[in-house]
Amino acid sequence: MGLGWAVSFCRAGWDVRLFDIDVERAQTAAQTCLAICDSLRVSARERGAAEGSQPIDKAVSGARLVIEAVPEQLSLKQSVLNDIEQVFDPQGLVLSSTSAIPATHLASAMTNPSRFLVAHPFNPSYLLPLVELVPGEKTSEYALDTAAALLESIGQQVVKLRREIEGFVANRLQAAVVNEAVNLVAEGVASPADVDKCLKDCLGLRWAFFGPFETMDLNAPNGFEEYAQKFGDSYVELGKKLLVANPWQPKALQEIANYLAERDEDFETKRQRRDTLVTQLLNLKQQHRIG
Amino acid sequence: MGLGWAVSFCRAGWDVRLFDIDVERAQTAAQTCLAICDSLRVSARERGAAEGSQPIDKAVSGARLVIEAVPEQLSLKQSVLNDIEQVFDPQGLVLSSTSAIPATHLASAMTNPSRFLVAHPFNPSYLLPLVELVPGEKTSEYALDTAAALLESIGQQVVKLRREIEGFVANRLQAAVVNEAVNLVAEGVASPADVDKCLKDCLGLRWAFFGPFETMDLNAPNGFEEYAQKFGDSYVELGKKLLVANPWQPKALQEIANYLAERDEDFETKRQRRDTLVTQLLNLKQQHRIG
Repeated sequence: MGLGWAVSFCRAGWDVRLFDIDVERAQTAAQTCLAICDSLRVSARERGAAEGSQPIDKAVSGARLVIEAVPEQLSLKQSVLNDIEQVFDPQGLVLSSTSAIPATHLASAMTNPSRFLVAHPFNPSYLLPLVELVPGEKTSEYALDTAAALLESIGQQVVKLRREIEGFVANRLQAAVVNEAVNLVAEGVASPADVDKCLKDCLGLRWAFFGPFETMDLNAPNGFEEYAQKFGDSYVELGKKLLVANPWQPKALQEIANYLAERDEDFETKRQRRDTLVTQLLNLKQQHRIG
Repeated sequence: MGLGWAVSFCRAGWDVRLFDIDVERAQTAAQTCLAICDSLRVSARERGAAEGSQPIDKAVSGARLVIEAVPEQLSLKQSVLNDIEQVFDPQGLVLSSTSAIPATHLASAMTNPSRFLVAHPFNPSYLLPLVELVPGEKTSEYALDTAAALLESIGQQVVKLRREIEGFVANRLQAAVVNEAVNLVAEGVASPADVDKCLKDCLGLRWAFFGPFETMDLNAPNGFEEYAQKFGDSYVELGKKLLVANPWQPKALQEIANYLAERDEDFETKRQRRDTLVTQLLNLKQQHRIG
């Protein structure tokens, strides 16, 4: 995710320094960052610089913002945040790129947790604009608002969680779909290919443009309240019968893996097609001033 | 939904007869069907005819297929299916357009349930290509395959359920998202606008093109099995904590309604924009031979 962040800032004209305990890795990442900017047709004049940098005090010196993006282990993240605090401007903003660990836990050993919060991006983060900002118990309003303004200035779509919850918002919505999908295959209700179709040939065509509430608003002539009145009871009844809390069965996972293996396309081909499609969808939305 | 079906068939060159106990309503629907075909830029030469027709024996006479699409009440649907059976060619295919009632219940009073099954479309069905086919206990393989071939021939994307389950597949996936979304607002985790953003600025951008399994396959360099290995436990743990089974709180519904009311756009404007966007997204997918 560190590389994704570097691309998002570099593309927007920011100078970016990448730090890693392995300096060569950081340098390679900086080069990859510039190569991705090229592939996104960002000219050398528009974008900022990107370089691998060591030691850490040099890497953070003069920065407006530091984003920690080391692997998802609480103690490792806490130790790196501690290293950052010792050398970084005490007024500067510190973000942690985690998809699961609450900001309050990460900040528990920090001297100044008020300028710290979680910023959760989505892969590939240079394409998917969403960032979830999750303040910890000690995060200041000022830090939250500054982080939001800063990320919006580089083109991200920011949501601000009002309180910490496991999985934040987007991953909870994703887990609801993924767990139900895996279990519908496990229960023999439909083939993996057909479950995929239900999303991409139907629900995903709506959700590319409209969230769940906007979709409901559009599905009744008199809007959301009429929809909720008419279908709320059915949703609640169905909710009790969903399979999202069931464990994943190895047999279902095997059936899904077999279906995906049949396609026989290499990762890079699939990745490039995804990037092209998502970029064109975002262009379409921009033309219509949606999102 | 009857009108949506009429458009899907008429657009593909089929002659369509619409029956309603109120013959004027059927005639109006037939005119609307032709008007929607016009708005979809289907020429009068490409499309079939559409007419309101009464009585029912005249309406079904000579038809290859009858689709029952009366309101979602079991006894009403059973009674209409009975009326159809009495006058329709015993070899002809009978589909019921329901989003919730199992085919086995609907067919319980039919003389020949083998030629009957559920075909569940999605609103607006002339745009969203998905149809879930749900056979009942007595539906023949032949009827299921014939219905699938026929719907695919008019451009629908067909999924065949292997067994009946409440909510079928797509509405279960939808309910998982909608219930979690409503309850995240109720729990004060995020604003309704931010919950909508998590779908349309992130998850929906993937799901417009890729189902849940294809998305996981793309999110690990070595594909689905690596992804499942790495994240399966987290999904299962998170699944236990999802809020999808909670009732909908009136306070949350009010907060969502207030947010949507702020937009102050009329239904027709919103509907037209949705139709334009979904049409362009489908064109984009077709260009890339996706779906």
